[in-house]
Order: sequence, then structure tokens, then C-alpha cells
Amino acid sequence: MSYQLSELAEKTGARLEGGDCQIRSIAEISSARAGDIAFVSNPKYIEHLSTTKASALIIKPEFLTQCPVPALVTDDPRLVYAKVANLLYPARSLVPGVSDKAIVSEQASISESVSIAACAVVSAGATIGAGTQIGAGCVIEADVIIGKNTRINANVTVGHGCKIGDDCIIHSGVVLGADGFGFVKEGESYLKIPQIGNVQIGHNVEIGANTTIDRGALENTIIGNGVKLDNQIQIAHGVSIGDNTVISAACAIAGSTHIGKGCLIGGLVGIVEHLEITDNVMITGRTMVTRSITQSGSYSSSTPMDTTENWRKNSARFRRLDELAKRVAKLEKNK
Amino acid sequence: MSYQLSELAEKTGARLEGGDCQIRSIAEISSARAGDIAFVSNPKYIEHLSTTKASALIIKPEFLTQCPVPALVTDDPRLVYAKVANLLYPARSLVPGVSDKAIVSEQASISESVSIAACAVVSAGATIGAGTQIGAGCVIEADVIIGKNTRINANVTVGHGCKIGDDCIIHSGVVLGADGFGFVKEGESYLKIPQIGNVQIGHNVEIGANTTIDRGALENTIIGNGVKLDNQIQIAHGVSIGDNTVISAACAIAGSTHIGKGCLIGGLVGIVEHLEITDNVMITGRTMVTRSITQSGSYSSSTPMDTTENWRKNSARFRRLDELAKRVAKLEKNK
Amino acid sequence: MSYQLSELAEKTGARLEGGDCQIRSIAEISSARAGDIAFVSNPKYIEHLSTTKASALIIKPEFLTQCPVPALVTDDPRLVYAKVANLLYPARSLVPGVSDKAIVSEQASISESVSIAACAVVSAGATIGAGTQIGAGCVIEADVIIGKNTRINANVTVGHGCKIGDDCIIHSGVVLGADGFGFVKEGESYLKIPQIGNVQIGHNVEIGANTTIDRGALENTIIGNGVKLDNQIQIAHGVSIGDNTVISAACAIAGSTHIGKGCLIGGLVGIVEHLEITDNVMITGRTMVTRSITQSGSYSSSTPMDTTENWRKNSARFRRLDELAKRVAKLEKNK
Repeated sequence: MSYQLSELAEKTGARLEGGDCQIRSIAEISSARAGDIAFVSNPKYIEHLSTTKASALIIKPEFLTQCPVPALVTDDPRLVYAKVANLLYPARSLVPGVSDKAIVSEQASISESVSIAACAVVSAGATIGAGTQIGAGCVIEADVIIGKNTRINANVTVGHGCKIGDDCIIHSGVVLGADGFGFVKEGESYLKIPQIGNVQIGHNVEIGANTTIDRGALENTIIGNGVKLDNQIQIAHGVSIGDNTVISAACAIAGSTHIGKGCLIGGLVGIVEHLEITDNVMITGRTMVTRSITQSGSYSSSTPMDTTENWRKNSARFRRLDELAKRVAKLEKNK
Repeated sequence: MSYQLSELAEKTGARLEGGDCQIRSIAEISSARAGDIAFVSNPKYIEHLSTTKASALIIKPEFLTQCPVPALVTDDPRLVYAKVANLLYPARSLVPGVSDKAIVSEQASISESVSIAACAVVSAGATIGAGTQIGAGCVIEADVIIGKNTRINANVTVGHGCKIGDDCIIHSGVVLGADGFGFVKEGESYLKIPQIGNVQIGHNVEIGANTTIDRGALENTIIGNGVKLDNQIQIAHGVSIGDNTVISAACAIAGSTHIGKGCLIGGLVGIVEHLEITDNVMITGRTMVTRSITQSGSYSSSTPMDTTENWRKNSARFRRLDELAKRVAKLEKNK
Repeated sequence: MSYQLSELAEKTGARLEGGDCQIRSIAEISSARAGDIAFVSNPKYIEHLSTTKASALIIKPEFLTQCPVPALVTDDPRLVYAKVANLLYPARSLVPGVSDKAIVSEQASISESVSIAACAVVSAGATIGAGTQIGAGCVIEADVIIGKNTRINANVTVGHGCKIGDDCIIHSGVVLGADGFGFVKEGESYLKIPQIGNVQIGHNVEIGANTTIDRGALENTIIGNGVKLDNQIQIAHGVSIGDNTVISAACAIAGSTHIGKGCLIGGLVGIVEHLEITDNVMITGRTMVTRSITQSGSYSSSTPMDTTENWRKNSARFRRLDELAKRVAKLEKNK
């Protein structure tokens, strides 16, 4: 793909300054070469402006006077960069059409423009919408419904009866609709509680590699529209996640917890079961959430890194923190 | 599936009260409709008793007077609910028989009633017991032994020589028998230590999606009978887990640690290598276990969530906690 | 495989003491039998020396007088053990040749001595080096380059354009080259930033089961030579890891962080984005790294485990630690 800079300006809504040129690719400002466009939003990269070899830059209005090459001028260079990148690098098609090495049930309902790769298995009762792609090695179980223009990358498993919307991207190794973790004690051992809910994924959702979303025990597990999930996230049965919430890698969200819209959850966060997290909550990395959050805002837990030597001393004191507090109270009393 | 309430009473050992009716499904008490049965064990749901549309309820004796519909009466409503759910929702069969798209070695030993789905690979020397199901895309390596009535869902990998008992459920994406993580330094780089043990899984074990259990370095990694493992758990080489221990999602257990019977381990727990955890230990979510536990009881670590603003102040103090304790000691001395 | 002890001495560089014998296998010193060799490096196992049934031992010079059987004498018994194990237990070949059930593109470049198992998919433009093995169910996407004598176990996914060196081992369930997690806000929702970098893996790298390594946004994600990654590690876009760094299970490393050479990172460690970790850094298990580390040494965070009862009291005090510190300061002032 290649565009004139003027076309990119028009398609992204940025203002063209300094003449037209051909743009073939995107690069970092420091390593860009002829034919590249680069973006600068962080002032610390401004020193590179004068020496860049890029053919054009995406910049804020205030840097225009220092810009030695043609530019797309915008208040949000990162957004224009993303739009330009989507134009220059359209998503690769997995494969055209249905591979003769795919195993597609005759009882599945497959739209005409679908592509299904080798060794993918599509079971009876499944419905695959127009323009949707199913990668190699995927297993789409019975009665799954997948919308339009969704991309399921290689080696994904979608359990029976689950539903995925339009324009989603599901990365490799994802497992949707495994049984929730539900047991009841019977004597010394545990009896399984059948997990009869499904997983329902909205539109425009992205789910990272090896993330798992379990089916509900009774009610469905629900992922709202526009939700973005990073890799290796665990979402338990009966969880719901509101529209446009973004969750970073390696989080674990326990059963029946409901997360609002527009939340930003850092990596390695744990959220225990049966909580309510309201809209527009930010949770920093590694926080352990053990109670509901009813007010928008930013929340944290964990302790700061130190040298192991210092940490050992402080950490040992933590085990007597209650005692220390009582000693301080006593000192105050006796003062 | 559908049952008379009287049949459900008989099969679950609960007491029938208030007349018979047809039960077709299970629902939450608040959303149940005609034909549904619901259960109430938490007193906070008692307000729904009078208005429920369920055809029958599973309740404790003390709520019977408030129950407007026929009931299964029991001291353990959750257990009766689980039993009813197992009757109404028997596990789906993956597929009948061995798919002609499965790749089954002629040197594998396959019982007659086995089902093996498309694109599953069963290698030479593998033994698959009666009634066991192997999902699509599974890879069962050489000399694996799988017992009776076990269900291996889609896209599971079982490494050579591993053994799985009867009545197990292994969810999608699980990897059993990858090499343990063992190296020895040789100059600047590391030499791999061959991992020559196996993984041995008992009977009635459930293993959640994308969980990994490594083969032992010299001795086997052992999972006892009735163990329940949630999703995305990592179990290192040479670990053993006692019967009926339950481990929630996203835990990591390091090499050669031995965990007793009947333990309950919360999500995101880490346990370092070469520890002994006795029977009937409870470990709360996100705890980091760095020493052996020789007494039954409940154990914890981690710090509480707060607003990021407050957390920053407290967290900064943690780095000087040892100093603070010394200052308090000095004050006490000078008092 | 079986060797004379004298051959093992010669091949490992250890000194033979006490006569020759046939060695067929390796075992723990306490469970070893005739034909086994065992190693002792930890003094606490010395009590087993006199009663071992092993045919030979690998020991340090200082234990030779107590050794009742022939021995390989060395200053580094673990290293000699690893070398002996590699001789006695050479890695199993996955399968010979290219299975007629593998799906290999005619536009792929496959060396003659390659082995590719059933249901593996190798796409157009891929290059597979001599002696490399591709397990069942693997998906090797377009334009992937894999070096010589590398082993890709079952059910691995390698995204388009990624590169893997020689002599690597990639365990089952690994996903290399899924999209990095990059979005930019556009109104209430998020626009995907195309991830146009690749993943580049050096030589002699081992990657554990279900680990994920994302492709770079603009620049590549780079794993150096000799790096060893355990299971279920998440490595985000644009990360680089220096040669011979070892990372234990369940770590998560956020985008554009650069880790030096020869580091040792414990399990469950989190490292936030855009940090620099210098060479030869050790980070203990569960540490949350939130700032760059410019000096070699050992670093930690987290808090110690306690009984839940004690922990609750101390943990509650943590939420008022800043206040406590201020109260101490006041006492000091008023003294």
C-alpha cells in the first residue's frame, strides 16, 4: 500500500502542511527513511525533528515551525498515526475461501464470503457471518454464532453455544466457553456443578493470545462492545465487562464480578468474586481488588520494589506492623 | 431432559414438599419461569421467595413456610442443586465414534466405545480407555495412558508417557507434560537438564483451560484424585498435589513443592519451590508462599487496595518501615 | 541408551574413580537401583551415600572418601549430571519426515531433513531449516523463518513473518507474534494500532508452554541467544531480552521494556512498560518492577505470608502507614 500525503490528510482529517509526497510505510522518527512517515507526540522526541530522514511527520501545531519536512498537523498525533497505519497496513487475510482441509459440518451455516483455514473444525449448528475468517487449527463447537468481519486467528477454541459479534479479533490460543469453576463439597470430595450458561462477546472486541473466558454457571458471561483484552487474562463464569473497558495482560477476574464501562485495568490485577466495579475506574498494575468500587477514580495496591537487602528488613517489619502501631499509640498516651 | 419433581427428590435424597410438577431447567430465583427449579441458600435471596415464577424451589427447612411453590427441602441446597443440574444437564458428548478425520496411530490401543474428534492426533503406544472422549485438535503423544470416561476437550496437548485417570475433565488449551524448567549454568550460558519424569493425574480430576503441568526432572509430577484446578494455573516439575485439593485460577506452583490433601488455594497464589504444605490448608488470593506450612489453617499475604493517592503515600512509607520501627524503639527507650 | 562409566567420564570431563560399570539411567540417590547413576551436590544428601543402591555417583572431591561405589568426581556435580542426562536421554524425535497429514504449502521452503507432524500447517513463504521438527497441530504462518535443529512441540502458533533461530525448543501452546496490545482512544471507543513489527528469537532459546510473545508495534520484539523462558510468561510488543537471561513462570513484561543479559527473574514478576533493566539483575518472585534498574544486584517487592488472622491486622495498619509515620514524627518533635 502506498498513499500520497495529501490523501492521508484527507482520509484522517489532519491538515496538510509543506507540500505533497509519496508515503509507503511508518517508522520511528529516529530510524525513519525516505518514504516513511513518523509521528511525534512526546516533546522528548522533538530533538529528532531537525535530523529525521522521514519523508513526512505527524505533529502537533506547536511543532510546525521546527518541522523540516511535509507534515500532517493535528492535535492528536497518535490517533492520526493509528489511522494512517490502518491505511498503509490493512489486516492480512488469513486465506481466501474455505480450505478443502478444513472440517466443516454440513449442518453449519456458512456465509459465502467466509474464509476457513486448514485443520479448522466447524461443528454442526454453527453460524459464521459474512467476511469472517477462521484460522488454521481452530475448533468452533456446536451452535456457536459468529458475526460479520470477525477474525479468529489460529488455534482458537470456541465452546458450544457461545456468541461472538461483528468486527472482533480473537488471537491464537484463546479459549472461550470452557466450563466455569463450580463445585460443591460432598463429603471429602467435590461434585461438579454443570455450567449451563454461555459466553457472549459484543462487537469490535479484541481478545489477546491465550486469554480464557469461561461460560456462566446459570447466566451468561458477557463482554461488552469495544472491550479490549490483552493476553493471558482469565475471566471466570458469570463476569460481565462493560463497553469500551480495556484490560491489560495477565489479570484474573473471579466469578460473577461486574465491571463497568470505560474502565482501564492494568496488568496482573486480580479482582475477587461477586464485586461491582462502577464505570470509568482505573486500576493500576498488580492491584488486588477485594471490595466493590462504587466511585470512579484510580485505585491501587501492592508495595514498591527495593533492593532485596532493604526489602527484607522492611518486609520483616510488616509482620509486626499492628504491634508497632499499638506501641506508637502507647507512646502518645504516655506523652 | 425433564424430570418430575418427585423423581428429583428421590434421586437427590431431598424431601419433596407441596405436590409434584414437571421440571425442565434450572434458573436464578429472580429470573426463573414456569418449568424451572431454583435454589435458595443465601438468606439475602429470601425476599424473592414470594414473587418467584419458578415451578419449584430447593430450600432449607426453615424457609419452607415462606415458600409459595413445591419444594425440595434439604440442609444443603447447593449440593441438591448440583445433583439436579447434573440430571437435567448431562454432559454433552463431543462426537460419536472415531472421526475419519482423526489421525490415530495403528500402534495405539483404543477401546471400542471411545470417541475421537476430527484433527485429533493419537500417537503410537497411546492407550485410550472405554468411554473416553478426545476433542478436535488434541495431540496425544506416544505412550500416553488415559483411563475410562475421561473427557479431553478440544486443543489439549498430552506429552509422551503421561497418565490420566478415569472420570477426568481436561479443558481446552491445557498442556500436560511439557518439559520442566531445569538448566545448569555452563560458562555464561545454560545447559538443559533433560526432564525424564512424567505427569500422573489421578481419577475425577478437572483441569481448567490453558493450565500447564510440567513433567518431572527425575521423579513424576503427581496430581491426586479429586483435585480441581482452575484455568491458567502453572504447576512445575516434581510438584505433587494431594487428593481433593482445589486451586483457583492463575496460581503458579514452583518445582518440587508438595501440597497436601483437602487444601483450598485462592486465585493468583504463588508458591516457591521445595516447600511442604500440609493437609487442609487454606491460602487466600494473591498470597506469596515462601516457606513451608506445617499447620492446617488459613494463610495470607498482600496489601489492601486503596485510592491511588492514599496508596502512594502509604507505599512510600513502606520503603522506610524498618527505619520507622527503629525510631519508635528509640522513642520508647528515651521515654 | 547405555554407557560405560568411563565413557561418561571422558565425555563430561569428570574424573573416574573406583572402577568401570554400565550406566543405563539416572535416578535420585535415595531411589536409585543397579544400573543407575545419581548425583550429590547438596551436603544434606550425604547421609544417603553409604546406603545408595546406585551403580555410580557424581560427587565433589571432598565426598570421595565416603563414596562406596564408582564415581564421577567433579567440582560441579549438577553440570556433570546434566551432561550425563543429555547422553543417556537424547531428545525424542517427534516423527520422521513430513507426515502426509501435514498441510505444507508448496510455496514453503522445507529442508530435506525436516520433520513435520500430522495436522501441522506450514504456510506460503515459510522457511524451515535442516533438522527442525514441527509438532502436530502447529500453525506456522506465512513468511516465518525457522533455523536448524529447532524443535517446535505440538499446538504452537507462529505468526506471519516471525523468525526463530537454531537449536531452540518451543513448547506446546506457545503463541509467537500475536498482535501487540496497542489502541488509541477515539471518542468513547478505541482504534486499533496495526502491529507491524515481528518477533525475532535468537539461537538456543527455550520457551515454555503457553507463553506468549507479541509482535512489535513498529519495531520488533527481540529475544536474545540462550534466553530461557518458563511457562505462561507474557512478553509484550517491543520488549527486548538480552542473551542468557532466564525468566521463571507466569511473569508479565509490558511493552517496550528492555531487559539486559544474564538476568535471573523469578516467577510471577511484573515489569511495567518502557523500563530499562541492566545486565546481571536478579529479581525475586512476585516483585513488581515499576522503575528502571541501572545497577546489577538483587531486587524485591511484595509482603510476607502470615496467618490470615495476623495478616488482617497488619494489612489494615498498612492503610494508615503514612499517618502512623507522621504520628511518630510528631512524637519525636515533642520529645
